[in-house]
Amino acid sequence: MVMFYLGNVLKLSLFGSSHGESVGSLVDGFPVGYKIPLDYIQKYMEYRRPGNTIITSQRKEEDVVKIISGMHNGFTDGSPITMIIENKNVISSYYEELKENPRPGHSDYTLYVKYGDFRNYEGGGFLSGRMTAPLVAAGALAKSYLDSLGIKITSYMKSIGEVTCDEIRGDPYNFETRIPDPEKNSLATSLLVDIMKSGDSIGGRIDTIVEGLPPGVGEPFFNSVESEISRAMFSIPAVKAIEFGDGFTLSKMKGSEANDPFTVLDGHILTKTNHNGGILGGMTTGMPVKFSIAVKPTPSIHKKQDTINLISKEKSEITVKGRHDPCVAIRAVPVVECLTAFVLMDLMMMGGFIDRYGNVRGRSLL
Amino acid sequence: MVMFYLGNVLKLSLFGSSHGESVGSLVDGFPVGYKIPLDYIQKYMEYRRPGNTIITSQRKEEDVVKIISGMHNGFTDGSPITMIIENKNVISSYYEELKENPRPGHSDYTLYVKYGDFRNYEGGGFLSGRMTAPLVAAGALAKSYLDSLGIKITSYMKSIGEVTCDEIRGDPYNFETRIPDPEKNSLATSLLVDIMKSGDSIGGRIDTIVEGLPPGVGEPFFNSVESEISRAMFSIPAVKAIEFGDGFTLSKMKGSEANDPFTVLDGHILTKTNHNGGILGGMTTGMPVKFSIAVKPTPSIHKKQDTINLISKEKSEITVKGRHDPCVAIRAVPVVECLTAFVLMDLMMMGGFIDRYGNVRGRSLL
Amino acid sequence: MVMFYLGNVLKLSLFGSSHGESVGSLVDGFPVGYKIPLDYIQKYMEYRRPGNTIITSQRKEEDVVKIISGMHNGFTDGSPITMIIENKNVISSYYEELKENPRPGHSDYTLYVKYGDFRNYEGGGFLSGRMTAPLVAAGALAKSYLDSLGIKITSYMKSIGEVTCDEIRGDPYNFETRIPDPEKNSLATSLLVDIMKSGDSIGGRIDTIVEGLPPGVGEPFFNSVESEISRAMFSIPAVKAIEFGDGFTLSKMKGSEANDPFTVLDGHILTKTNHNGGILGGMTTGMPVKFSIAVKPTPSIHKKQDTINLISKEKSEITVKGRHDPCVAIRAVPVVECLTAFVLMDLMMMGGFIDRYGNVRGRSLL
Amino acid sequence: MVMFYLGNVLKLSLFGSSHGESVGSLVDGFPVGYKIPLDYIQKYMEYRRPGNTIITSQRKEEDVVKIISGMHNGFTDGSPITMIIENKNVISSYYEELKENPRPGHSDYTLYVKYGDFRNYEGGGFLSGRMTAPLVAAGALAKSYLDSLGIKITSYMKSIGEVTCDEIRGDPYNFETRIPDPEKNSLATSLLVDIMKSGDSIGGRIDTIVEGLPPGVGEPFFNSVESEISRAMFSIPAVKAIEFGDGFTLSKMKGSEANDPFTVLDGHILTKTNHNGGILGGMTTGMPVKFSIAVKPTPSIHKKQDTINLISKEKSEITVKGRHDPCVAIRAVPVVECLTAFVLMDLMMMGGFIDRYGNVRGRSLL
Repeated sequence: MVMFYLGNVLKLSLFGSSHGESVGSLVDGFPVGYKIPLDYIQKYMEYRRPGNTIITSQRKEEDVVKIISGMHNGFTDGSPITMIIENKNVISSYYEELKENPRPGHSDYTLYVKYGDFRNYEGGGFLSGRMTAPLVAAGALAKSYLDSLGIKITSYMKSIGEVTCDEIRGDPYNFETRIPDPEKNSLATSLLVDIMKSGDSIGGRIDTIVEGLPPGVGEPFFNSVESEISRAMFSIPAVKAIEFGDGFTLSKMKGSEANDPFTVLDGHILTKTNHNGGILGGMTTGMPVKFSIAVKPTPSIHKKQDTINLISKEKSEITVKGRHDPCVAIRAVPVVECLTAFVLMDLMMMGGFIDRYGNVRGRSLL
Repeated sequence: MVMFYLGNVLKLSLFGSSHGESVGSLVDGFPVGYKIPLDYIQKYMEYRRPGNTIITSQRKEEDVVKIISGMHNGFTDGSPITMIIENKNVISSYYEELKENPRPGHSDYTLYVKYGDFRNYEGGGFLSGRMTAPLVAAGALAKSYLDSLGIKITSYMKSIGEVTCDEIRGDPYNFETRIPDPEKNSLATSLLVDIMKSGDSIGGRIDTIVEGLPPGVGEPFFNSVESEISRAMFSIPAVKAIEFGDGFTLSKMKGSEANDPFTVLDGHILTKTNHNGGILGGMTTGMPVKFSIAVKPTPSIHKKQDTINLISKEKSEITVKGRHDPCVAIRAVPVVECLTAFVLMDLMMMGGFIDRYGNVRGRSLL
Repeated sequence: MVMFYLGNVLKLSLFGSSHGESVGSLVDGFPVGYKIPLDYIQKYMEYRRPGNTIITSQRKEEDVVKIISGMHNGFTDGSPITMIIENKNVISSYYEELKENPRPGHSDYTLYVKYGDFRNYEGGGFLSGRMTAPLVAAGALAKSYLDSLGIKITSYMKSIGEVTCDEIRGDPYNFETRIPDPEKNSLATSLLVDIMKSGDSIGGRIDTIVEGLPPGVGEPFFNSVESEISRAMFSIPAVKAIEFGDGFTLSKMKGSEANDPFTVLDGHILTKTNHNGGILGGMTTGMPVKFSIAVKPTPSIHKKQDTINLISKEKSEITVKGRHDPCVAIRAVPVVECLTAFVLMDLMMMGGFIDRYGNVRGRSLL
Repeated sequence: MVMFYLGNVLKLSLFGSSHGESVGSLVDGFPVGYKIPLDYIQKYMEYRRPGNTIITSQRKEEDVVKIISGMHNGFTDGSPITMIIENKNVISSYYEELKENPRPGHSDYTLYVKYGDFRNYEGGGFLSGRMTAPLVAAGALAKSYLDSLGIKITSYMKSIGEVTCDEIRGDPYNFETRIPDPEKNSLATSLLVDIMKSGDSIGGRIDTIVEGLPPGVGEPFFNSVESEISRAMFSIPAVKAIEFGDGFTLSKMKGSEANDPFTVLDGHILTKTNHNGGILGGMTTGMPVKFSIAVKPTPSIHKKQDTINLISKEKSEITVKGRHDPCVAIRAVPVVECLTAFVLMDLMMMGGFIDRYGNVRGRSLL
């Protein structure tokens, strides 16, 4: 019966829906006395915003984050932080057809099953990708905090369809496909233009690297780093898989290959390799934390698809109208990055690395 | 600061450690008036138990589950159910060397970083694979309940190293490798014997299929079926990846390929394909729920490995002694199966499909 | 680290502060498909509102509740319900003096100790009586739901100073002192006018009766009816005591006097007396639930009081300016009534009497 | 659906029942590396134990606390601490008559309504006073920790019937009635002997004083010191009222009387009086925290009482057999003391005064 809650010590609640008047998030437990970096948050809102490149949905949303509580004279005051983002440019008429004819691959059908006639169906209601806007707002706040501790989180498109990024060659946000390689970005852009023309969509893979985390972040078992990150990632619509370190490849390796030998460098204990993605026993080792997620193709496509009519229970067809991203994964990049920050900050607070009064403690014994 | 807790309505706490006197679990919120099937639970304890096949660890543990609370005249009485499993056959001397020299790929090092001199280091302490025994006990209780509702959960080894199961040909528990195919089981057994001889270990992949779930199980966002299952799976030691439905393959597919078209069969709404693994918008569609996990090779191997000495901070070497499984994934099969049952039962209670008084309601609108 | 959260299944978060732009509440877990009775909620906002009688604070606030999420076409849609009430008529200049000189009996000092320079001090910040406005909004929603089940909650002023109500003679909200007796209301009004003239304030006692609850509401131990109601009541600023049934008098009674004998009436099991206030073992018996709370006098008074200067740590004096109620208990009446509704609805949902899909079940065995 | 849980950061779960094989508690979140003082815990078990004075129940229980998890080499290891106390000297035959004929004033009836035929009815099952044994065990652990910080908690019988303690004249545990005054103790003992002879019981009032708490403990609103203490106190069977500071008397006082003026003593900010019981805005002021609770008379009395037969629904009579305390409040004294310690330690951890790694920080700004 607990819904829409993320976090253990630093807590996030989401509210709103895609076609209501606004969406928002409520963040509880954030350290007192932190100057809220509105520009930083707004920058990430821009990264996520539709309509900011030719290959993303052409809706024009001005996603201005308004903080209506938890801030006093610009600083956090210890009470819950409420962030609100208005919905503009909403066109509900597109959705009347969908009310009876669920889009394949979309949550229309499961929303109907669960909430019946009272469901909030326009644009996916509260299951819409629109809900990632408040996720980014809350996560960007956490990300700015981790930045100040020297913890760097980078997410980028590892691949779109068959176009794969082999090396990071710049800031992902300087590339419209978020593939940080000029050549691959061009290839992917061409691919996406073709996909759009054909009325179809395509999936993608997002990689994330976290550098600068102290060892010992994460709690045993159900609050392990992997448990907490995966739980958060699968809350992002369209994410269908996650792997940490070498992930599925580890299932084919031998122990002598997969174990990362320990070594010492400048008095710090490290591992020579990082097949385990910086996590052992659910806790960080001090090596970079690495994980990949798979994002399925946008389910809303302009091609004709088979569906059923929910009222008549007879076969039906649907051709989705409206504005949709050819590759929804691209806009998920800042969502993954910010949400990762939120989860890691929660785990750091849970583990006593950061407290509610803004004290940061080096808990490492090393 | 909340540790060792899983579940929202049906709740699980773990306690104990591998070399203490016992391990156990406390289950809260289970329906009242359910006859606890001790034999069924014990059967799953046997499936997980070390020493029950030639290719698993030769420790002899008698994992008898003793229920010390929550049961009255054999039935659940509405109060928390405490299950205790004694630790026998414990040899701590093996672990003295490990106290200063952490095993690569194991949690020895992160436990040291987090808990320092007070850590419970023998055999991994409370991060040991031994903790999966109470997970199985609690999960088997939930699994028996879902069985009674016609919900069938099957986990099996999809692959060990390069040996892959293409078709399920029998009950996985009739095969010592849990690969349910006589031929592949033989191949994998030979592989494991070789691995053991070489003092090494190997990883594996476990597939799970859940049939008979009603549509609408799972809650939006942070309590989606994927979020909850992944959180639980990553609490199992050595799990490093998970994918639902076609998983990572979806990241290379087009929307027109990945979307599962709806159809009607005997008045039931189904999808023609099941690329999404029976989950849309985080909720079940009524199609089988499918997911795969990657289990890394057992980190404790008999080969010499590089490590560091935690006291001197100088390079060191370690050759792990003791009894360890060549492929820890095999023993994880019943853990995955039972833990999946626990998570799904929690989500069904959360969603009103089952209540605390044992009422089961068909919530489907169809 | 969890703050501002109330409830187990039906959950409430508060946000905002008295001198920010708004206050609000977020209600999660409310049944789907319930028509939100905006007029009913607004009516309770009026009962709580300052400036609506001559003997309450003369601030003019228009406490219009705006629902920005969780409602679709006027009905609850299963997602969190966000209610916002704007702050108007805010005068911060009154509070500069208080910044350094904490008011005796008020939270100025403890806020300073806890949050230091980052505290939100104007008007008590997020510890203000203003925060009871969103409590009423959320609670009134729950109260309307219980009304529809025939559960009737009545709170009223049992006493103001030495003026005591011996019998309920009308709707408490028809009397400006909320003492539902014309004669006693007049006496209390005169008393309050005198109190106001003298620049002082006075305490009061609020009694609550809940009729129509089924037996069996409440959970063992930490979620007993008494535990849950008391926890909520003490969150209302200025509440300092609570007693259920005969309360403190029970501490002087004999078992043969205090035990309520069981009897049968029209096939229903009742108790002949109700010394236990309708609660045994933390669960409702089916008899009316009765409790009383003590509200201390408004700490902000116009008389000169001794304090200390927080900066110089030297003795100081303060004469509070601004508009304050002579008896803050009067405005707490609807807060107690609505918050009681919220707590009881949560317990009913927790106990399976009401589910998230609006099903109401008679769980009584009798 | 969450049951039997207390605490936010330091968490307590209870399990077992009065006539099962054991009762126990699971404590999660306790600081790592604390030497568990078994003797100290056992001492409090003795204080609570029945049969240790002539005026308490003559059952002989050896309440030995056995710690089966969370302890490594005598120190807390960071994992959940499981404490088990075996039930001995259990006589179930007494309870067969009660199965159909609920005792007035007891939870027999509400247990029946809630759990029906599956209820654990012998001796109150999991609603028995026996469950306070694990409460004491867990609370004594917390109390020893607070002792080490110089925080002193003292609970004692303030009154039994009309015998009232005016001054504390010794350690309450040196007096069999827990009234810390030789003369009043004698009076109360005589009273209790008479009560026992007449087959009746009597209520009592327990006062608690906490000295040495830093200012700023407690969280706004729902986790205020009053909210948290009251929630815990009402989980103790037979508690029916609580007041903080001057409590109900405050409801008749004027602001100019009730407000505690601030003053400075040796550089510390104090209040001249303490009508508010050391709590303002739900947070500690640094003055002693004071509260009183009312405990009703033991409902199990040897006098004939009216009841109903649950099966026939006809009037019936009952004369309770077995061994029962004439004044159950006496044995509640250590329960109140230890549970208060648990709640305050949780709030101190929540507020950053103590962390999980045993660091104690003076958070006061003064």
